[in-house]
Amino acid sequence: MSEQQKQPFLLKEIRWGVVGAGRIASDFVHAITLCQTPNKIKAIASSDSLERAQKFCENNLLDKNEINCYGSYNELFNDEFIDIVYISNLNHQHKETVLAALNSNKNVLCEKPLAVNKLEVEEMVKKAKEKGLFLMEGYWTRCFPLWIDIMSKHLNSLGNVQMFSTEFGCPIIRVNAMTGIKDGGEGYLLASGCYCLMIAQLIFKSEKPLELKVEGKLKENGLDYWANILIKYSDNKLARIFYSGEHRADGGLNIYCEKGNIRIPEFFWCPEEAIIRRYPDPKTVPHLLAVKATTEKINNNLPEFNLFNYNYPKTAGLFYQIDHVSNCLREGMKESFLMTLNDSLLLAETLDEIRKQLGVKYPQDDF
Amino acid sequence: MSEQQKQPFLLKEIRWGVVGAGRIASDFVHAITLCQTPNKIKAIASSDSLERAQKFCENNLLDKNEINCYGSYNELFNDEFIDIVYISNLNHQHKETVLAALNSNKNVLCEKPLAVNKLEVEEMVKKAKEKGLFLMEGYWTRCFPLWIDIMSKHLNSLGNVQMFSTEFGCPIIRVNAMTGIKDGGEGYLLASGCYCLMIAQLIFKSEKPLELKVEGKLKENGLDYWANILIKYSDNKLARIFYSGEHRADGGLNIYCEKGNIRIPEFFWCPEEAIIRRYPDPKTVPHLLAVKATTEKINNNLPEFNLFNYNYPKTAGLFYQIDHVSNCLREGMKESFLMTLNDSLLLAETLDEIRKQLGVKYPQDDF
Repeated sequence: MSEQQKQPFLLKEIRWGVVGAGRIASDFVHAITLCQTPNKIKAIASSDSLERAQKFCENNLLDKNEINCYGSYNELFNDEFIDIVYISNLNHQHKETVLAALNSNKNVLCEKPLAVNKLEVEEMVKKAKEKGLFLMEGYWTRCFPLWIDIMSKHLNSLGNVQMFSTEFGCPIIRVNAMTGIKDGGEGYLLASGCYCLMIAQLIFKSEKPLELKVEGKLKENGLDYWANILIKYSDNKLARIFYSGEHRADGGLNIYCEKGNIRIPEFFWCPEEAIIRRYPDPKTVPHLLAVKATTEKINNNLPEFNLFNYNYPKTAGLFYQIDHVSNCLREGMKESFLMTLNDSLLLAETLDEIRKQLGVKYPQDDF
Repeated sequence: MSEQQKQPFLLKEIRWGVVGAGRIASDFVHAITLCQTPNKIKAIASSDSLERAQKFCENNLLDKNEINCYGSYNELFNDEFIDIVYISNLNHQHKETVLAALNSNKNVLCEKPLAVNKLEVEEMVKKAKEKGLFLMEGYWTRCFPLWIDIMSKHLNSLGNVQMFSTEFGCPIIRVNAMTGIKDGGEGYLLASGCYCLMIAQLIFKSEKPLELKVEGKLKENGLDYWANILIKYSDNKLARIFYSGEHRADGGLNIYCEKGNIRIPEFFWCPEEAIIRRYPDPKTVPHLLAVKATTEKINNNLPEFNLFNYNYPKTAGLFYQIDHVSNCLREGMKESFLMTLNDSLLLAETLDEIRKQLGVKYPQDDF
């Protein structure tokens, strides 16, 4: 344990500016109250009006005297009293917004997906490195203690991973108040499917897919509705992924290993429980499947929170990410070790490949 | 409750002849001791020698004075003291053996798969109908009380089925003592994958697939090693199936419905436990995934049995099928209502299509 960890009251407070005054930003400012390290909201910016930023403070019971409200992003980027900005506007706005923040010498945590394609991610990563600033794609999932424990301890005890499988179907019905775009407005791959690909990349330790096969369905508007994806990695490792805006599936996940498997029963993107099953040694049993695996549960429950403060399920868990990012900043890091910039680049490449096969093309694409 | 059910002691005893003296036949003669209705082994036939049939009796502690042992199948088919034969030799021998049994006017329960392709199944079904005899493909799974309860009660309470998903990977390592052929000798589709397709057909009530896409891997011998299968049915219903002889997966299964889902955690082909999750009404919760589903477990445990009497996992459960078949015979039925002859035809057609896409061709195929 470091001196700092022993004496958390000595930790520097990290001051956040929140860009975008939508639902996920609202969840973010509630989640920050659960942090274990000192973090504080210092500014809010809406792109269109000061009133909207002020209204956001009111709605979320924030003290307007303590928080700078801005009617444009650039005003916030020029606020010298913030250390990092959290960017939560629409996906297609991320690139421009992140670049503006970096150009104003602000560190950045940007909601997933970092951008709509790899071309944009490359540009953003290049800029962050040029400026020597922190940039992270906000895959809060990777900051969950359950995933950190699985990756650092439990998975290693089960031999090599052979296969990963998940189903995440979420028929989102809300319409975005600002744009009138329904959630899934960039297609469900970027709305929810990307979580499945991000977690495959985590489990297979950022190995580049050898081969990727996709079968899916588009909506009338040309955006993807669901897809069934098979990814082949080296040594016959496989990922089987299904995401959907048409079918409902609660994000159960299986990691099959040589000596057992790990199951997350639901909400793999913000999990509180996993089940680890260990197979008996095949040499000691009459046949391979004859004897039941031994089973243990691991839990990392979220702290108590008021469900009705949040727009999305379990986004109280955003506080894990806020703590992680602020620790990175205090340590002088320029990227997260849980979700690296190379991870963002590889993930964007994978998502591009899936869209290519599905036939979903954005104006921003070069393919 | 019928008179017969009230007075089981009045039920006619069904006399079984067992064809093939291998491991599954051994499990069958043990499972029959668990039956709730009167069933008895009356004859055993080995294809190659009387001694092998006699040795089978000894090894399985059967009384040779009560059981006719034969060194050829035809002798058993001519035994007037048996009502039905259970055929358990190798898959490519099924057609010839079943036809011979039917031609000798014997009812037949034949191990899965009934034949190696649809062409053969058609011939066998035609013969059974011509002769007015009972014929059933031995998918014991469909006789498990858990499946009967799921299909007759629980599934109906969850609204329409949207998607079915399963993974069954079984790296079988044994070598068949008679032939030297490793299990999976016809490819893993016919060894284990067929169970996944059979259960998809059950869940989707024998609906014919609209479209089927397969991605898989062959071994050096040209037989299939694993496959990832997506089946599209009407109304956007989907089946996602993975089977493998290379990866281990314990046969967990999910059925996603409008109002909830059913999970069988393992061994879906002979299950003892399922978990039913019901979603809260979306109108009553702040967002679709916010509130946990309510969960209940349903159990139908196998009766106590000695694991070491059996070669394969949980084949004690074959007794459900034996009871079902003998009830069918007592009722004068010519086919099972749990696994109909049309089911066998449609299933064979589906398995043929998968092999076509994989490029696995048998000498018996006409494609």
